Amino acid sequence: MTTQPMTLLVIISEAVLEDTLIDEITDLGAKGYTITDARGRGTHGTRAGRWTQGGNIRIEVIGNAQLCGRIVERLQRAYEKDYGLLMYTVPIELQN
Amino acid sequence: MTTQPMTLLVIISEAVLEDTLIDEITDLGAKGYTITDARGRGTHGTRAGRWTQGGNIRIEVIGNAQLCGRIVERLQRAYEKDYGLLMYTVPIELQN
Amino acid sequence: MTTQPMTLLVIISEAVLEDTLIDEITDLGAKGYTITDARGRGTHGTRAGRWTQGGNIRIEVIGNAQLCGRIVERLQRAYEKDYGLLMYTVPIELQN
Repeated sequence: MTTQPMTLLVIISEAVLEDTLIDEITDLGAKGYTITDARGRGTHGTRAGRWTQGGNIRIEVIGNAQLCGRIVERLQRAYEKDYGLLMYTVPIELQN
Repeated sequence: MTTQPMTLLVIISEAVLEDTLIDEITDLGAKGYTITDARGRGTHGTRAGRWTQGGNIRIEVIGNAQLCGRIVERLQRAYEKDYGLLMYTVPIELQN
Repeated sequence: MTTQPMTLLVIISEAVLEDTLIDEITDLGAKGYTITDARGRGTHGTRAGRWTQGGNIRIEVIGNAQLCGRIVERLQRAYEKDYGLLMYTVPIELQN
């Protein structure tokens, strides 16, 4: 058993973007992702308050800080203006 | 891209409390929350062992330490005696 | 209100293993767990690439570092060869 310090990136967004976000994440180099259905409200990443009560997704991606930074930058530039989008990172220990 | 150190508060409780907990959290100042359906078992926060196998929810709230502390205090005082309730906090970097 | 530093262990695996993993975790000493349904893709913990697009679960267990280490070791030895399995740990503050 060994552990490896990595970054967990959590992306909360609208369910309608699921396929699009998966393509972006994979294209940027993520080797995997985990999605759960979610609901909620928020004010981040949306100018028009388009977040709705339902139909959100929560995506987890594990990678190094560079990969997570690239994903954050790309998603903010491409989707933050028009969609609900909240992202945060957490340092984790991946168990290998 | 800038990042902002914040606190993630995770609340695991019974699904029957969903609307009540959302009201509490919002009243205390939370700007948003993310809910996922969950199931499980636990012994925290319940004197009568009322946690059941199903019908749980997992709520995420992001805020400063003060907001998260207020929510924890309020929920413990109001619900811990009669409902399954588990709360933990994690330092995160919010991606703005 | 007091807080207690603990370890959060997140286990992402195949839904078909749910009952088996719960038994393992409980036998090893976990007092509780939280499960959410998930979907995703990954390359960790599988030699034959058996991860599928659907039918995953995300399990959270809170414990001390020793308990989490025992669970990681046991699950890796027993399931990593034949099933999709990804595990990571995060330091948290349990709110008591």
